[in-house]
Amino acid sequence: MSDYPSIVLEQAVNQLASLPGVGRRTALRLVLHLLRQSDQDVEAFASAFARLKKEIIYCRVCHNISDSELCPICSSTRRDHSTICVVENVQDVMSIENTGQYNGVYHVLGGVISPMEGIGPKELEIDSLIERISKGDIAEVILALPTTMEGDTTNFYIYRRIQNVFPVTGNPSPVTLPKISQIARGVAVGNQLEYTDEITLGRSIVNRTEFKG
Amino acid sequence: MSDYPSIVLEQAVNQLASLPGVGRRTALRLVLHLLRQSDQDVEAFASAFARLKKEIIYCRVCHNISDSELCPICSSTRRDHSTICVVENVQDVMSIENTGQYNGVYHVLGGVISPMEGIGPKELEIDSLIERISKGDIAEVILALPTTMEGDTTNFYIYRRIQNVFPVTGNPSPVTLPKISQIARGVAVGNQLEYTDEITLGRSIVNRTEFKG
Repeated sequence: MSDYPSIVLEQAVNQLASLPGVGRRTALRLVLHLLRQSDQDVEAFASAFARLKKEIIYCRVCHNISDSELCPICSSTRRDHSTICVVENVQDVMSIENTGQYNGVYHVLGGVISPMEGIGPKELEIDSLIERISKGDIAEVILALPTTMEGDTTNFYIYRRIQNVFPVTGNPSPVTLPKISQIARGVAVGNQLEYTDEITLGRSIVNRTEFKG
Repeated sequence: MSDYPSIVLEQAVNQLASLPGVGRRTALRLVLHLLRQSDQDVEAFASAFARLKKEIIYCRVCHNISDSELCPICSSTRRDHSTICVVENVQDVMSIENTGQYNGVYHVLGGVISPMEGIGPKELEIDSLIERISKGDIAEVILALPTTMEGDTTNFYIYRRIQNVFPVTGNPSPVTLPKISQIARGVAVGNQLEYTDEITLGRSIVNRTEFKG
């Protein structure tokens, strides 16, 4: 006999336990919670996931998750379409949106270059980024990738690719080289210096900015 | 604009976040994980929950979760059907089964008496327990409810109800009173005495058992 009194129960537990960070005990607790909900509630739960993969599409411009061909940000006329913020994933778009500090558009790479994990530039939306930039009309590209070795590698790769689009010699390019920037690195707001790691603290001194009193 | 770039995404996140102990950030991470899985995997995920409420039934004897009218334990001929272990919920059946120490059958109350939460005897499977016992053939009822005030109250209530089934005076009852026991309470195996709470430690002294060297 299986550990579970019901195969249907076991399958639901298995599905939840297949999610990262969800153990079998938690999964069982959640499934039993669902069982106590109304038929409609459980149906709504199931159908949300049935629709998920079928109905979600990716914005054809920035590759963010979307319900239509063009995501709400790319289709907004109130956004600055000449500034592209390059991010690793969808969560990062949402995090930056939540700050309320950014009014440009995005480009979701879908990851960062990681030879260890077999992720090269071809696995990421880098070609499409370069294509977007090649069309001109882009004033600034903000690299907002994770401040890890993989993020740095990807930053550098993208930087070189953008440079190559705009050759210095020969015929003057019909489009102008966008400004390329990266997010500021330094001591997190609210952090004590003594608890900040050496590399971050070192960089925050080297890359100090003018104090505007 | 909503925080989410897609309504379908948001609905899936809302559903996961409706589960106890799952925050919105975790829910988003899990949904994005699902999105990276194959179509078939996500379909299997959704259908496991679509089937959950429709196909799960409760054993008509012990009220454990089951795929059929009679759960695997109640329908097993290798179990001792004269011993009933009374538990609060389905998890408890699985926990006791996992010990490998019990070969009787169960009765799942579906909760414990809790006036604070408005749960009285009528909300629980107590009448059906008494009915099972009234038919006779039950040698022992093991009360394995939580060792809380609510558990104790329920234990006492069930004890009284069983006593009432078997009147002492008048015509001799056609069935015999089963032995009523409760799970042992004491210092958990592997625990240091200094970290055991006073009430448990006190009881473990009062209810000491013979040492069989």
